[in-house]
Amino acid sequence: MDAFWGYERALMSNDVEALDRLFAPGPDTLRGDAVGLLVGHDQISAFRGSRGGAPQRTVVETHVQTVDDDHALVVATTELVRGGRGQQTQLWERQEQGWVVTAAHVAVPPPAYDARIWRTLGSPLARATGDGPLAGESVAVKDLYAVAGQRVGAGNPAWEAAAAVETTDAGAVAALRAAGAEVTGISRTDEFAYSLAGTNHHFGTPPNPKAPRRISGGSSSGSASAVALGHVSIGLGTDTGGSIRVPAAYNGVWGIRTSHDAVDRTGLLPLAESFDTVGWFARTPDLLAAVGDVLLPPAGPRPVGTVGDLVVVPELLALADPDVASAVGEAADALGATEESWDLSALPAWRAAFTTWQAWEAWKAHGPWLAGRLDTLGADVRGRFEMASRITEPRALEASADLLAARQQIRSLVGDRFVALPSASSVAPLVDSDLDVVREATLQLTCLAGIAGLPAVNVPVTTAEGLPAGLCLVAAPGRDRDLLAFAPVVVLDRR
Amino acid sequence: MDAFWGYERALMSNDVEALDRLFAPGPDTLRGDAVGLLVGHDQISAFRGSRGGAPQRTVVETHVQTVDDDHALVVATTELVRGGRGQQTQLWERQEQGWVVTAAHVAVPPPAYDARIWRTLGSPLARATGDGPLAGESVAVKDLYAVAGQRVGAGNPAWEAAAAVETTDAGAVAALRAAGAEVTGISRTDEFAYSLAGTNHHFGTPPNPKAPRRISGGSSSGSASAVALGHVSIGLGTDTGGSIRVPAAYNGVWGIRTSHDAVDRTGLLPLAESFDTVGWFARTPDLLAAVGDVLLPPAGPRPVGTVGDLVVVPELLALADPDVASAVGEAADALGATEESWDLSALPAWRAAFTTWQAWEAWKAHGPWLAGRLDTLGADVRGRFEMASRITEPRALEASADLLAARQQIRSLVGDRFVALPSASSVAPLVDSDLDVVREATLQLTCLAGIAGLPAVNVPVTTAEGLPAGLCLVAAPGRDRDLLAFAPVVVLDRR
Repeated sequence: MDAFWGYERALMSNDVEALDRLFAPGPDTLRGDAVGLLVGHDQISAFRGSRGGAPQRTVVETHVQTVDDDHALVVATTELVRGGRGQQTQLWERQEQGWVVTAAHVAVPPPAYDARIWRTLGSPLARATGDGPLAGESVAVKDLYAVAGQRVGAGNPAWEAAAAVETTDAGAVAALRAAGAEVTGISRTDEFAYSLAGTNHHFGTPPNPKAPRRISGGSSSGSASAVALGHVSIGLGTDTGGSIRVPAAYNGVWGIRTSHDAVDRTGLLPLAESFDTVGWFARTPDLLAAVGDVLLPPAGPRPVGTVGDLVVVPELLALADPDVASAVGEAADALGATEESWDLSALPAWRAAFTTWQAWEAWKAHGPWLAGRLDTLGADVRGRFEMASRITEPRALEASADLLAARQQIRSLVGDRFVALPSASSVAPLVDSDLDVVREATLQLTCLAGIAGLPAVNVPVTTAEGLPAGLCLVAAPGRDRDLLAFAPVVVLDRR
Repeated sequence: MDAFWGYERALMSNDVEALDRLFAPGPDTLRGDAVGLLVGHDQISAFRGSRGGAPQRTVVETHVQTVDDDHALVVATTELVRGGRGQQTQLWERQEQGWVVTAAHVAVPPPAYDARIWRTLGSPLARATGDGPLAGESVAVKDLYAVAGQRVGAGNPAWEAAAAVETTDAGAVAALRAAGAEVTGISRTDEFAYSLAGTNHHFGTPPNPKAPRRISGGSSSGSASAVALGHVSIGLGTDTGGSIRVPAAYNGVWGIRTSHDAVDRTGLLPLAESFDTVGWFARTPDLLAAVGDVLLPPAGPRPVGTVGDLVVVPELLALADPDVASAVGEAADALGATEESWDLSALPAWRAAFTTWQAWEAWKAHGPWLAGRLDTLGADVRGRFEMASRITEPRALEASADLLAARQQIRSLVGDRFVALPSASSVAPLVDSDLDVVREATLQLTCLAGIAGLPAVNVPVTTAEGLPAGLCLVAAPGRDRDLLAFAPVVVLDRR
């Protein structure tokens, strides 16, 4: 017990060196908390070095189970100065250097709610207005959509403070409520949706339960995290250049970005209207499709896609990291995809035109308000808007012409098939990664559906290391329902 | 590992008998989760019998630390079908009958927020409107106070559905915001505040972190639980017949019920206006007093109370359970309280008059709306309102006359001293207790300040068994600030 109290003292004074000594060396030492499990002394030590100390607490109850002369389990109930009680379970072992912890499980009471995921919550925040196929479902609404009685915050506190209370639901929100779903809350977004990272400067990065200590992805970050954590069944988001596909892939959930203009964008704050689309997340393909039944226009005359329609493009796989490329490639193979080679020499030009026109439209939409308020933005989004503010009209028009050509080329490459590609170029990056590099790589993949206005469904796959990755299925504009009908087939086929 | 997977199968099928067998017999077996720690096979078995199964999940990662031939620690990461990941740490031991668990620590992801505590949350729900002594503090507002832009729900879904959106803050809410505090959310109350239990039929019983598996007390249940858990620093509530004092005592937090009419009740839904008072909770006496500085009228000419003023009444202690009486008595002794005998022969009559007049006023306030809607109430509160509806005017007037006399007698008994008594007759009852019996016993104690309009501060004490109990300090009407100034002295003296 001396060692236990020594540990407690070291913890309360954040004596990282002492804590390092009190955890057993080697790759098998374990430490788990609500964020996830750390395996090995190195991971644990890195965590301690970065977190800046544990919450202050007192031990109110201890139980010791002596296993043998050299092992004891200590279970302690703690009382936190900030309120609430926690529990700590530790297996201690006597080694040459003294008693050390070989495994620790730490639980502390969570806050009222996670403000990285949510801006506002209610039970419900907005009731269902009808009874329908979504009765019993709960929705996280990305903080870009109008919800009657609430403000739109757009991920930026200055915007939120100046916003008026909405009197009418956005079209997509109204349709979900009319179909029986209730709104649980308003979920965080990257500022003005102008990011793929989810690392909102003001509110933090939502947790990613299947990939602890990695980013959630964005910009529909709160909705993706809320669905992954089971806070809600449906996460409403948007996708301009990947804002559904990327967080869906990173969090291992299903997601769809709909065809451009297929779903009503009334009451949705724009980023770049030529590319903005409504999208959503769910934990099952069935619910993903059920939401589609409510939000999408009636099905056209086209038949539902079959496995035979599926094409995989090695040149697109090669744009992803090897672990993602191989997970996506194997999943496509398992679905009987046919390999097809594409000439992607124009891709860098397409991506550049996409970025330029997106920025041009974003500044058209938000420049007048942001011009004197750029200092209210985090560095990442501020940098993008500053770049956007410098785009000249001739350059924008040139990009627009390039985009028209690119759109035709991409649509004709996709044709009448389903195309499988990675939803993002990598698994979710660790929170301290260089996210600009990741963004550039992922945009190469995601800009295709953005430019061509294609529907895209993220099918969760898993890398060899056990991390979530995304198989993205795209099809011709308007084939949203075909993709959604195909999604459950994908699951069945993989069993 | 066979035993581990056997356990997992038993858990997923809720095979209670198998689970009982797989936990080691005896009083030392441990099982902890976010609710609290269960000690001994009997407690664990009772818990399993009552909870109706664990959430469905799959094991995604396991780590085994073999301690010796007869002991192994198994740490598993689980993925819940409802979303999110959890962790389970188990110490297994080989006993005669096979491998059994001697200690388990289970963590599952919490919901977006606890709807037993909160109705609505925001970051913040309502900003501070000024800078002042409460800057940086966060408030849970009991769902009886108006918050601009929100409805008053009164703990009853039918009332909430019919309520209009408030356009102005209640007086107390406005004052807190003007002093720099922000409103985090609207917290649960018993229906129309007509209970001391906190067991709202519609929304459940908020957790009590220091007394796991026991009720929170009410009617200011959500605010008390939110403060105890550290969700907020200040819990705004009301106290008519104990609705601050009882949950403060049960949860081990500080609380004050102010003198009747000392704090503005504008924008507060009444229960019984002759007794209704504004009150609040905090985790420290300093913050309790700082809120008083904002909400209470300026101090009168009276000196701050000193320890010499304190009186303890054995006849009042005797109204509490022995564990509470002895914790409260010891705390009073430690403060140098003088014993004084009171003739309490009239107490049953006082209590009856209090209950009758409270019911009469409650029906005056809510009868017109409730008359056709009694079936929207839980059985406990419905029973009280039905009783209230049958009170005749002559009986009410008689009660009112008795109350006037009682008020004078109680005020003259208290005089110019501080009186120490139990805040509630018992520690927090287990959730499946007979709460009517507890209510009757506690009302004997709490009705005194109710009848006489006295201020009352709950000082947290602990029973010999380690459960929270409450030392209640009452004084003459208007001496709220004296009590609040005395409270930190109490803490110092007990060190």
